[in-house]
Amino acid sequence: MKKTQMAKKLKFKKQQNKKQSQKINKAGMAPGQFIFTGEQKTEKTLIQLMTYNNEQIVEESFNTIDKALTAIDQSQKTAWLNIIGLHEVEITKKIVEHFNFHKLSGEDILSVGQRPKLDDYEHYVHLVARMFHLEQNDLVDEQITILFKEGILITFQEREEDAFELIRTRMKEGKGLIRSKKTDYLAYALLDYMVDHYFIAIEHFGNSLEDIEVELLSEVSDDMLPLLHHKRREIAYLRRSVFPLREAISKFEKLEKPFMSTEIKVFIRDVYDHTIHVMEMVTVYKDSVGSLLELYMSIISNRMNKIMKVLTIVSTIFIPLTFVAGVYGMNFSNMPELTYKNGYFITLFGMAVLTLLMIFYFKRKKWL
Amino acid sequence: MKKTQMAKKLKFKKQQNKKQSQKINKAGMAPGQFIFTGEQKTEKTLIQLMTYNNEQIVEESFNTIDKALTAIDQSQKTAWLNIIGLHEVEITKKIVEHFNFHKLSGEDILSVGQRPKLDDYEHYVHLVARMFHLEQNDLVDEQITILFKEGILITFQEREEDAFELIRTRMKEGKGLIRSKKTDYLAYALLDYMVDHYFIAIEHFGNSLEDIEVELLSEVSDDMLPLLHHKRREIAYLRRSVFPLREAISKFEKLEKPFMSTEIKVFIRDVYDHTIHVMEMVTVYKDSVGSLLELYMSIISNRMNKIMKVLTIVSTIFIPLTFVAGVYGMNFSNMPELTYKNGYFITLFGMAVLTLLMIFYFKRKKWL
Amino acid sequence: MKKTQMAKKLKFKKQQNKKQSQKINKAGMAPGQFIFTGEQKTEKTLIQLMTYNNEQIVEESFNTIDKALTAIDQSQKTAWLNIIGLHEVEITKKIVEHFNFHKLSGEDILSVGQRPKLDDYEHYVHLVARMFHLEQNDLVDEQITILFKEGILITFQEREEDAFELIRTRMKEGKGLIRSKKTDYLAYALLDYMVDHYFIAIEHFGNSLEDIEVELLSEVSDDMLPLLHHKRREIAYLRRSVFPLREAISKFEKLEKPFMSTEIKVFIRDVYDHTIHVMEMVTVYKDSVGSLLELYMSIISNRMNKIMKVLTIVSTIFIPLTFVAGVYGMNFSNMPELTYKNGYFITLFGMAVLTLLMIFYFKRKKWL
Amino acid sequence: MKKTQMAKKLKFKKQQNKKQSQKINKAGMAPGQFIFTGEQKTEKTLIQLMTYNNEQIVEESFNTIDKALTAIDQSQKTAWLNIIGLHEVEITKKIVEHFNFHKLSGEDILSVGQRPKLDDYEHYVHLVARMFHLEQNDLVDEQITILFKEGILITFQEREEDAFELIRTRMKEGKGLIRSKKTDYLAYALLDYMVDHYFIAIEHFGNSLEDIEVELLSEVSDDMLPLLHHKRREIAYLRRSVFPLREAISKFEKLEKPFMSTEIKVFIRDVYDHTIHVMEMVTVYKDSVGSLLELYMSIISNRMNKIMKVLTIVSTIFIPLTFVAGVYGMNFSNMPELTYKNGYFITLFGMAVLTLLMIFYFKRKKWL
Amino acid sequence: MKKTQMAKKLKFKKQQNKKQSQKINKAGMAPGQFIFTGEQKTEKTLIQLMTYNNEQIVEESFNTIDKALTAIDQSQKTAWLNIIGLHEVEITKKIVEHFNFHKLSGEDILSVGQRPKLDDYEHYVHLVARMFHLEQNDLVDEQITILFKEGILITFQEREEDAFELIRTRMKEGKGLIRSKKTDYLAYALLDYMVDHYFIAIEHFGNSLEDIEVELLSEVSDDMLPLLHHKRREIAYLRRSVFPLREAISKFEKLEKPFMSTEIKVFIRDVYDHTIHVMEMVTVYKDSVGSLLELYMSIISNRMNKIMKVLTIVSTIFIPLTFVAGVYGMNFSNMPELTYKNGYFITLFGMAVLTLLMIFYFKRKKWL
Ligand SMILES: [Mg+2]
Ligand SMILES: [Mg+2]
Ligand SMILES: [Mg+2]
Ligand SMILES: [Mg+2]
Ligand SMILES: [Mg+2]
Ligand SMILES: [Mg+2]
Ligand SMILES: [Mg+2]
Ligand SMILES: [Mg+2]
Ligand SMILES: [Mg+2]
Ligand SMILES: [Mg+2]
Ligand SMILES: [Mg+2]
Ligand SMILES: [Mg+2]
Ligand SMILES: [Mg+2]
Ligand SMILES: [Mg+2]
Ligand SMILES: [Mg+2]
Ligand SMILES: [Mg+2]
Ligand SMILES: [Mg+2]
Ligand SMILES: [Mg+2]
Ligand SMILES: [Mg+2]
Ligand SMILES: [Mg+2]
Ligand SMILES: [Mg+2]
Ligand SMILES: [Mg+2]
Ligand SMILES: [Mg+2]
Ligand SMILES: [Mg+2]
Ligand SMILES: [Mg+2]
Ligand SMILES: [Mg+2]
Ligand SMILES: [Mg+2]
Ligand SMILES: [Mg+2]
Ligand SMILES: [Mg+2]
Ligand SMILES: [Mg+2]
Ligand SMILES: [Mg+2]
Repeated sequence: MKKTQMAKKLKFKKQQNKKQSQKINKAGMAPGQFIFTGEQKTEKTLIQLMTYNNEQIVEESFNTIDKALTAIDQSQKTAWLNIIGLHEVEITKKIVEHFNFHKLSGEDILSVGQRPKLDDYEHYVHLVARMFHLEQNDLVDEQITILFKEGILITFQEREEDAFELIRTRMKEGKGLIRSKKTDYLAYALLDYMVDHYFIAIEHFGNSLEDIEVELLSEVSDDMLPLLHHKRREIAYLRRSVFPLREAISKFEKLEKPFMSTEIKVFIRDVYDHTIHVMEMVTVYKDSVGSLLELYMSIISNRMNKIMKVLTIVSTIFIPLTFVAGVYGMNFSNMPELTYKNGYFITLFGMAVLTLLMIFYFKRKKWL
Repeated sequence: MKKTQMAKKLKFKKQQNKKQSQKINKAGMAPGQFIFTGEQKTEKTLIQLMTYNNEQIVEESFNTIDKALTAIDQSQKTAWLNIIGLHEVEITKKIVEHFNFHKLSGEDILSVGQRPKLDDYEHYVHLVARMFHLEQNDLVDEQITILFKEGILITFQEREEDAFELIRTRMKEGKGLIRSKKTDYLAYALLDYMVDHYFIAIEHFGNSLEDIEVELLSEVSDDMLPLLHHKRREIAYLRRSVFPLREAISKFEKLEKPFMSTEIKVFIRDVYDHTIHVMEMVTVYKDSVGSLLELYMSIISNRMNKIMKVLTIVSTIFIPLTFVAGVYGMNFSNMPELTYKNGYFITLFGMAVLTLLMIFYFKRKKWL
Repeated sequence: MKKTQMAKKLKFKKQQNKKQSQKINKAGMAPGQFIFTGEQKTEKTLIQLMTYNNEQIVEESFNTIDKALTAIDQSQKTAWLNIIGLHEVEITKKIVEHFNFHKLSGEDILSVGQRPKLDDYEHYVHLVARMFHLEQNDLVDEQITILFKEGILITFQEREEDAFELIRTRMKEGKGLIRSKKTDYLAYALLDYMVDHYFIAIEHFGNSLEDIEVELLSEVSDDMLPLLHHKRREIAYLRRSVFPLREAISKFEKLEKPFMSTEIKVFIRDVYDHTIHVMEMVTVYKDSVGSLLELYMSIISNRMNKIMKVLTIVSTIFIPLTFVAGVYGMNFSNMPELTYKNGYFITLFGMAVLTLLMIFYFKRKKWL
Repeated sequence: MKKTQMAKKLKFKKQQNKKQSQKINKAGMAPGQFIFTGEQKTEKTLIQLMTYNNEQIVEESFNTIDKALTAIDQSQKTAWLNIIGLHEVEITKKIVEHFNFHKLSGEDILSVGQRPKLDDYEHYVHLVARMFHLEQNDLVDEQITILFKEGILITFQEREEDAFELIRTRMKEGKGLIRSKKTDYLAYALLDYMVDHYFIAIEHFGNSLEDIEVELLSEVSDDMLPLLHHKRREIAYLRRSVFPLREAISKFEKLEKPFMSTEIKVFIRDVYDHTIHVMEMVTVYKDSVGSLLELYMSIISNRMNKIMKVLTIVSTIFIPLTFVAGVYGMNFSNMPELTYKNGYFITLFGMAVLTLLMIFYFKRKKWL
Repeated sequence: MKKTQMAKKLKFKKQQNKKQSQKINKAGMAPGQFIFTGEQKTEKTLIQLMTYNNEQIVEESFNTIDKALTAIDQSQKTAWLNIIGLHEVEITKKIVEHFNFHKLSGEDILSVGQRPKLDDYEHYVHLVARMFHLEQNDLVDEQITILFKEGILITFQEREEDAFELIRTRMKEGKGLIRSKKTDYLAYALLDYMVDHYFIAIEHFGNSLEDIEVELLSEVSDDMLPLLHHKRREIAYLRRSVFPLREAISKFEKLEKPFMSTEIKVFIRDVYDHTIHVMEMVTVYKDSVGSLLELYMSIISNRMNKIMKVLTIVSTIFIPLTFVAGVYGMNFSNMPELTYKNGYFITLFGMAVLTLLMIFYFKRKKWL
């Protein structure tokens, strides 16, 4: 099982590396190009539209982005357009052009492996965060981009599993404030949901760490060293995925826009609190990994100590005895002791006494 | 005894974990839901009301929150409503609605495991801190929420032991300024009392650390390593419970409210000083744990050194002697020394000389 | 191959040292002297001029700087003057005087080994950054100075390989915004291009680190220690080449100049984001090197542990057996066991039993 | 002698602990209570008054605080009231009430173990710092509180040795500016004097550290480890006694009071400089203790290395030789070599050659 | 040679200690006393005056300070008064009084071992920095104080070697801007010159570090440990001599004085850049020392590993063989093997096989 676990981790790690490395292909290109830097994770791009207000909510799926954009233009309600899968670059391009978004926004949507951030483009807001899922007890993450302005909010996801199913359900059931509020509140609700998932990711990490600790205290094995070093990298990855979010949320709170109400601030402050809490937990587990590594090395060191004690005790008792035996094994013609009637027994007795003395010595030294 | 101590610690640790993990159940829920995330620590919720002014003080208990709220509405005096036990969610909900508190406040009251903080909601103040008790020589802590506005202050506690008995006594005896002041002063007094209890917790931690140090210097044992690593986690928990309080108190000092007098500032500054002092002590003990861990490893290393010396001395003396004995134990037909009359005694004498030389060598090397 | 790799690294390191050490020759000189502190890296200084606007683009090369300056003066278009090779000091001097640049600017152009920075001289901007190239799988870097003002931008490079070929191609093909914008956008485009090359350098570093890790986990060798310590120095060099750039770009964004448009800000913010991303990756790899060093030491420690176990097992089994053999090798005249018919076989059997007991003991201790 | 030194240290440490622990008794009390938290260090409280101006200076002692207060009220000169010994709480209380000081000030005077600080109470200033004395080559410290306002400065000391004798002498001799200045300058002079004593304390610490280093490099002993760990705690105590002073002095410089002249600022800046210098020295010695601990561990490690070398050399030479001797000690009936005339001598010669080869091998390996 | 090097270092270190310790004698003294705290480093104080403007430059030496001051008063040109040697306290006193400098300035001039700083005394500026010289391949440093105001600049040096000879030559030759500028530019030029000398000091340190590294990688010796720990202290001393300069230069740039021109700012920014560069190099070498210490410990650890391997291989091969020999050396009367014709040769053959098996085992374990 541990083998499998390690294999998974390495897969996780390779994903991270890939994300960071794709940037390089773009050296020398003009900024604002529509190029997808990730790997395709869905077969077909899904285009989902939800239009809602306090009285009514409509959910639709579209085959082409053009139809979806027309539907948005014709609706009087608040619209949430959800795009899943980024490899069909044309879709992103059309959205960006339709809503007059900046082309740097467009580039960022398709550049997966972004740090969480919030960019303020006068007439709309561009927000990036990471969503963590547990997939068969394994952490996967994807980049979520949220663009919102007066009346319309657009989300871009990398992976097919719909990140926001629960939010959607809440909206359809009319629970909470979400239906009676505008896109600013929806953006907040999505962000809050993602931060809640950070808790799940960190919880998962913490549990695996606790398993390691329990195992460590019962029996040290060799493969724990690379495992712990891998854990260190994992928590560092989580750290980098969370810490920049703090600044993004702080910017969010300070935004002054016609499409943002003042009563949203208190909700943003709440999600900010949660983010700080997540950061604190990340720091706790980062320290824990360091602690476990130290503990591992200490246990190894302790064991060495015990092994050396055994060697020293055995050697220290038998080496002198063997010497005595060696002396009486010499072939000198004139060795009076050899002819004594009880020479042999006296020697054995002497050896026994010597042994007892040494055992007594070791007892006093607390080695036994 | 040590076994018991360890067991207790692990219990303490599990409590902490639980607090941090309950958050996750709320992923996808609308914000501001009244859901208690802790475990029930009292059988029945206690509802205590104290109304007071300079002339008079009345203390009452209620079965239902409705009666308590009516009593508050009818009283002309300053009111302190104290709720012990959070599992009956309806009580919190009614209080929040009665006083028109924000529903995010309500959620925070029931979300135990919050970081200490102060939130400023225009017409009232929401303050969170942690209270540490010593229970049978064991640290337990609970979340205390204080909400206060013009004329009314409400405290929410998790555990049955009344945290603020001494304050209550002081008020009934009319000692100090508390009776002639408003809710701002009462909030300060409660905060000051909690900070005083941080000293008790840290004192307790420091004492247990001193015991470990004394034991460490007299005899190193194996179970100290996990114990010290556990201590590191404990002080980190204390650290996280104290450090955010500084910012909360600093916000408290800067509040400008109609229900806050200017003369309260100097008192807040005093409790701020105490908090800084507590933080300093936490830092000292954090460093101490690190120091003890290093000391432990050094002592282990030192002992290894001594064990190796014994092994080396015994081996270095007897291995050559055993070789000599081996030589004269060979069965060559022509070995002239064997026939010498004093061959045996000369050999023994030579061995003795060799031994003395080696002892002299070790003395000079300061190994003996 | 590893030998070659190490040799390359040392070459890289020596280059760095040289850059830092040349400063000293200038102690006592007046500031603003035109002295080239690097080593000559091109045979002949190349003087390239590109004049462009939205309709037209002209690319020329000149033998003398005077002709180039005349051409610039006569052109109505935006001009980009590119100087490759700094050893002909007169060229720099003439440029500085022609455009009325500050003589401290002139000195800085020729002082290679500068930290990245942006200096604001009222009527023009002086920008320094480092360009990293991969040359036969080996990292080389050079200092790039960019001076720009109304209508003219000048770049100074150390090395012959043209750093900006791709940008030039883009301009000639009329791709992107660059042709329709002024020198501020060109400066941004060059900076963006250099930051993209930081990704290449870091990617390269990361790959070499991954190779080391793979090797480390399969087999530890002695030369890894100096290699890892060398890697630590390399990443520190990258760190120093990147981190100051952040402040320079931040200054760039805040500049208020007649020759800078407001719409450039959003592009600068984008390159700022990339720089932060680069810094994050540098930090990740810095931590990785530290981690690998720790891992290396832990593996060494683990191996020692195993070696000691083998020694202890062998010694602990055979030393007592050898003692028994020694006892029955003694030459006492009266040793009854020696005359027993099966004495030898009983002794061998006893030895076998002793051996099995010890093997059982080691099994229980998990040493085998 | 070392024993005595250690004993002293532990005494010092216990004092520190006591200071920190007394706070806890006050949990639940109203703020501003007059309770002395230290231990009585003088038999009788000394009440000393010095009234002075440019022309005249009068020094008096009083039995009761009432007489002293009357004398102050009647004097037209600047007054310095010096209280030594804090256990007679009534004295502090009367002073606080007489001059209308805040009761939190009163509490702080009697709470020894305060961090250095400066509190600004509108009509007066409350300043706390620590005074270090060398007492029989041993560091002791006490809390000094300075309260000053228009025309009157009051100092509170814990210990009988008069901290400020030299200042008093300077005043009586009319040296320096002190006589012609007001209480602000006197406060500065006292502070400057205390900072000068920090230098003495740090100097003392540094000397003891140098002694340890010299001893460490000549011979490592076991008791150095706890000693160095104790030193680490001592320097941390000094650090905590000095670092908060910086902020206090910085506040002092920024005070705007009718009883503070503008020309005092340059003097405060000077004492601020000295404090920074002290902090720098504390940091140096903190690093030194860390360095010595590392050096200690390295020396231990080095010694182990040498011990192992000796063991390995002796074993590696004699174990094979002993084997050879063992071979020819076997009792096979048919062992041709045993009957060779020079078999014994050839064997001895072979052993000698083997030994020389091994010695050569060790030489080449640089083990000898 | 290494011995001599170490001796030099210790001398250097003692100088540092002395500088820091002299402060203590002044405890209790009035501030602003003229007391020289260093050791006399010149026989006679040198008093040099240079008066200059754009047309003319005059250089003079004086026996008494009074004559020099008269000459300054009578000159219409900009004056640079250079004092070498501080032990004749009267000279400093007369200068301070003549120009109406603050007496705290006077005290600071004579208090060597100051941190670099810039103090702004309304009508003049007080600047302190350290000058590093290479004296016979050995670093020495001195405190340089620069006071400047309208028309006059005064430098105070500790050591006879004239620090500023090259500047003087430049001025006499009329090179650079210095002759046509005022005292602000001269102050800048001196500061720039001192910062250039920091590069020399750091270069020197870096070279010695490189020598150590080369030696370390070829052969580890015992005296490297104290040498590296000494290097750590040296770089910390350099660090403390450089880092505060940054703030001083930053203050310099912000000064607004009638005797400071606005065009000086760009020059100060340049020297500020150099200081940042120096700080960066100090940080690099600080990290390098730490790295070398770690490398040293790792190499020691690696060697131990190899020594243990040799011991284990030799023991593991010969201990079992010796046991076999011991068995056949037993004297049982009934040991059938002993009488076999080829018993001896079979045994030898068995031993050879056993040896080969073990060598094969070690090969597989990569120990050989
Ligand atoms: Mg990232
Ligand atoms: Mg990290
Ligand atoms: Mg990180
Ligand atoms: Mg990071
Ligand atoms: Mg934390
Ligand atoms: Mg920790
Ligand atoms: Mg928390
Ligand atoms: Mg922590
Ligand atoms: Mg924490
Ligand atoms: Mg502290
Ligand atoms: Mg501390
Ligand atoms: Mg410490
Ligand atoms: Mg450590
Ligand atoms: Mg640099
Ligand atoms: Mg570094
Ligand atoms: Mg660096
Ligand atoms: Mg990182
Ligand atoms: Mg690390
Ligand atoms: Mg303290
Ligand atoms: Mg500390
Ligand atoms: Mg400290
Ligand atoms: Mg230092
Ligand atoms: Mg320092
Ligand atoms: Mg250190
Ligand atoms: Mg200093
Ligand atoms: Mg330092
Ligand atoms: Mg320093
Ligand atoms: Mg650096
Ligand atoms: Mg650096
Ligand atoms: Mg480093
Ligand atoms: Mg370390």
